[in-house]
Amino acid sequence: MSPRPAPRPRRAGGGRRGASLPPRRGSGDPRAGRPPVAPRGLGGEQVEGRQAVRELLLAGRRRVRDVWMAADIDPAPILTEIEELAYRGRVPVRSVARGQFEREARTEAPQGVLAHSAPVPEAELDDLMAVAGPGLPPPFLLALDGVTDPHNVGTLLRTALGAGATGALLPRHRAAHLTPSVTKAAAGAVEHLPIAVVPGLPGAILRLRENGVWVVGLDAGAPASLFDLAVADGPVCLVVGAEGAGLARLTRQRCDVLVSIPQAGPLDSLNVAAAGALACFEVARRRRRRPGVGPGPEGPADP
Amino acid sequence: MSPRPAPRPRRAGGGRRGASLPPRRGSGDPRAGRPPVAPRGLGGEQVEGRQAVRELLLAGRRRVRDVWMAADIDPAPILTEIEELAYRGRVPVRSVARGQFEREARTEAPQGVLAHSAPVPEAELDDLMAVAGPGLPPPFLLALDGVTDPHNVGTLLRTALGAGATGALLPRHRAAHLTPSVTKAAAGAVEHLPIAVVPGLPGAILRLRENGVWVVGLDAGAPASLFDLAVADGPVCLVVGAEGAGLARLTRQRCDVLVSIPQAGPLDSLNVAAAGALACFEVARRRRRRPGVGPGPEGPADP
Repeated sequence: MSPRPAPRPRRAGGGRRGASLPPRRGSGDPRAGRPPVAPRGLGGEQVEGRQAVRELLLAGRRRVRDVWMAADIDPAPILTEIEELAYRGRVPVRSVARGQFEREARTEAPQGVLAHSAPVPEAELDDLMAVAGPGLPPPFLLALDGVTDPHNVGTLLRTALGAGATGALLPRHRAAHLTPSVTKAAAGAVEHLPIAVVPGLPGAILRLRENGVWVVGLDAGAPASLFDLAVADGPVCLVVGAEGAGLARLTRQRCDVLVSIPQAGPLDSLNVAAAGALACFEVARRRRRRPGVGPGPEGPADP
Repeated sequence: MSPRPAPRPRRAGGGRRGASLPPRRGSGDPRAGRPPVAPRGLGGEQVEGRQAVRELLLAGRRRVRDVWMAADIDPAPILTEIEELAYRGRVPVRSVARGQFEREARTEAPQGVLAHSAPVPEAELDDLMAVAGPGLPPPFLLALDGVTDPHNVGTLLRTALGAGATGALLPRHRAAHLTPSVTKAAAGAVEHLPIAVVPGLPGAILRLRENGVWVVGLDAGAPASLFDLAVADGPVCLVVGAEGAGLARLTRQRCDVLVSIPQAGPLDSLNVAAAGALACFEVARRRRRRPGVGPGPEGPADP
């Protein structure tokens, strides 16, 4: 257990490292007259929920334009913390009437707090595949193949970060991008976990394999069990599929190995975020147990 | 891996074992004139989503009044299966206009299918604590302490069933009951997993401990790691807490042991459904590995 360090007053608000906010219509932004640029990037410009907004300010990776708080919310320590972080980062905090807040919010339970910021910066696949440096863990990636439920996408990013993943891959066309619902469910993980957007997962998987990354697909029909997975300290990418349909055919074919999660009950599948959590922490557990040891099966086979 | 058996045409529709539907206002039900009875039970009368409706019909544990299908949905094998199961169970299937369907549905994505049925029957705590019989696994329970997000409640029930849990506990006042969103996220788990509603969790925990059930609470601040948990074949109850706040104070005090999930990243907690999945499958993994062996630590300690 690594308990969270007490308040980290670093780089709150950011904005001093070249990040730029997209122009807002009618905002008087001097760039508003420029020709429109095709929307690119991961999104994430509207962040809702207390944990997500606090992490946005703490991480300081994105320029934050403002924080809105509903005028009628009850005091809470995390709200005080958000106000202090915003003050240190010179981010204006606006107290807005409940009605105005509700009209702006796009998630079901924004908890009275939202922020507007620069989009989440995209990472490059090449950087995610590279070993970061001596003594640092090898790449541990999570790829989402057509996961569309924002709650699942956000939870998967949060869980991957908690398990020690070093990056995530989202396909440009099939995955949910970082909507307010995703960033809220991610509870701040999008501020820390490098995320690459790839044109298609099958192509990205080929590149990963060419670069020595072992690609493990989760597939409910696979005879091999996740818990017998021969994985330890090498570079690895887990791939989880869409709710219901699972992995796309071509994605499935391109993986090095497919594994399933042994089920005890009469149902045949788990929620994708639950399955992804088990897979991410299985990698984490094995890396923790066998430092420096290469791939190899552990323990008896599943019955 | 236990692959799901092909179509199970058993008891679809039910209704022949004493389950009764609550009277519907204006339905002409002969019981409509009786004095009103305080609402009790778990709810679950409206089931939405393809997997949830299929499992409702397959399990046959509840009387199903009717199945509604939106008239404009595209054909799919699971829809044919639902129609066949309903036919065998003598459950009428109504094709309804999209507008009418949307007005009736209460979840965001009901997938064009919903059903009305008798409520989910409540299990008794005494039954959940008892060993079901020789050769059967000892009790493996999951208790939800104030988890309110319906998606999390449903996912937790689904995951618990998949891990081999034998029952779940919901406190009467603090937990979300089986709303359409819960039953949809549970994807049929509520048809199979016995669920007891208890007046309060602290009292239930005392009763569990008096009956030899080892109660393990998940607490982000606990120094002990889930992955060093000394648990194997004995009766066990996992307790997960509310989103954000975690376990209630009294619940935390009453548990036999508190464990946390080691985190690698800068965030200090996981989504409760992800944490619950890791805990449930940790119990499953240890039971699978050590049949018949009592509690004891496994492997080296976490760093």
